[in-house]
Amino acid sequence: MADSRLLQISEFCRTIDREKFVQRRTFLSDGERLENDAEHAWHMAVMALLLSEYSNEKVDVLKVVSILLVHDLVEVYAGDTFAYDEEGKKSQRARELAAADRLFSQLPDDLCAKMRALWDEFEEWESPEAKFAHSLDNFQPLMLQHASGGRAWREGGRRLSEVLERNARSAQGSTRLWEFAFDNFIRPEIEAGNLIDDTGSAD
Amino acid sequence: MADSRLLQISEFCRTIDREKFVQRRTFLSDGERLENDAEHAWHMAVMALLLSEYSNEKVDVLKVVSILLVHDLVEVYAGDTFAYDEEGKKSQRARELAAADRLFSQLPDDLCAKMRALWDEFEEWESPEAKFAHSLDNFQPLMLQHASGGRAWREGGRRLSEVLERNARSAQGSTRLWEFAFDNFIRPEIEAGNLIDDTGSAD
Repeated sequence: MADSRLLQISEFCRTIDREKFVQRRTFLSDGERLENDAEHAWHMAVMALLLSEYSNEKVDVLKVVSILLVHDLVEVYAGDTFAYDEEGKKSQRARELAAADRLFSQLPDDLCAKMRALWDEFEEWESPEAKFAHSLDNFQPLMLQHASGGRAWREGGRRLSEVLERNARSAQGSTRLWEFAFDNFIRPEIEAGNLIDDTGSAD
Repeated sequence: MADSRLLQISEFCRTIDREKFVQRRTFLSDGERLENDAEHAWHMAVMALLLSEYSNEKVDVLKVVSILLVHDLVEVYAGDTFAYDEEGKKSQRARELAAADRLFSQLPDDLCAKMRALWDEFEEWESPEAKFAHSLDNFQPLMLQHASGGRAWREGGRRLSEVLERNARSAQGSTRLWEFAFDNFIRPEIEAGNLIDDTGSAD
């Protein structure tokens, strides 16, 4: 039976397998291996099932999970942009827009629109679901940073001001999660000497 | 602010990071590296967003996605049981039940019950969502098996009868996906000599 629609979706599903090869800069909890985008997305999606009660605003959990599952897909073509790579961040938006056009257009029109809308919603950072997804997108690597003994911060010579800048909007989605992350993941790494407090805010 | 509930959930989220270390027996599309449980779950969850129209019965997509995200969590303690390991499969149910008790009880009672219900639903294979989740749980590795040039089948000397037995219930969740997988992922690997046709059914 010819089924060009199913063939098209199946080809797309094969293409996004590449997300498993996009390496992030956070170590897994064993402190040995870097996480990849697919693992990161899975972890956050499970966390959304467990933590949505901590969102500042009521959220549609399916939408949060969907956003988290697909928000890094464009990196299949655009690559991961390190949060502290100031040069890379200048071209990030243009690279990711081109990647989104290229990637999602491989789907049938209706699914292309659906995937693109999820990605756009995350990027726009306006809906309750997008804000909460961003909160988790910041919470999860802070959790792993602490679980892995602050290795990436220590080796990168990271300063608290950089971490705070990266998390400037984390509390928009969840004040509770941001405060918890500061107290339980960030502060202990300052005390252990793995993150340099150049702000005095951890006193 | 003391928040023992959030602390408890957060500890659980850290524990399940270990799912990224549970290796499966399917190669990624590059044919070089084996997939892990977290990558597998992420891939299927995205596929559920794209393929739910192919379910035999109407499904609640959030439930399908949730089941897929958590269905392998018990392997954090029980390990992966290879689909063709007949000895391992004899003890699989007992090992996974013990693992489920140990793992989910680390959550607050309401979330323990929620996670356990999702896992039980998958294991019971009765609801439309569980049947469709199982269809994807079979479809995705068949897709990767073909994408990776049939390497695991070739190296394992696999026979079609084994693959058919493993997929005996795949069509219960989606006749379309099973037929597509047979024609597009299995048959080409028989023709390429990577899977031994000991049944004559691919003629």
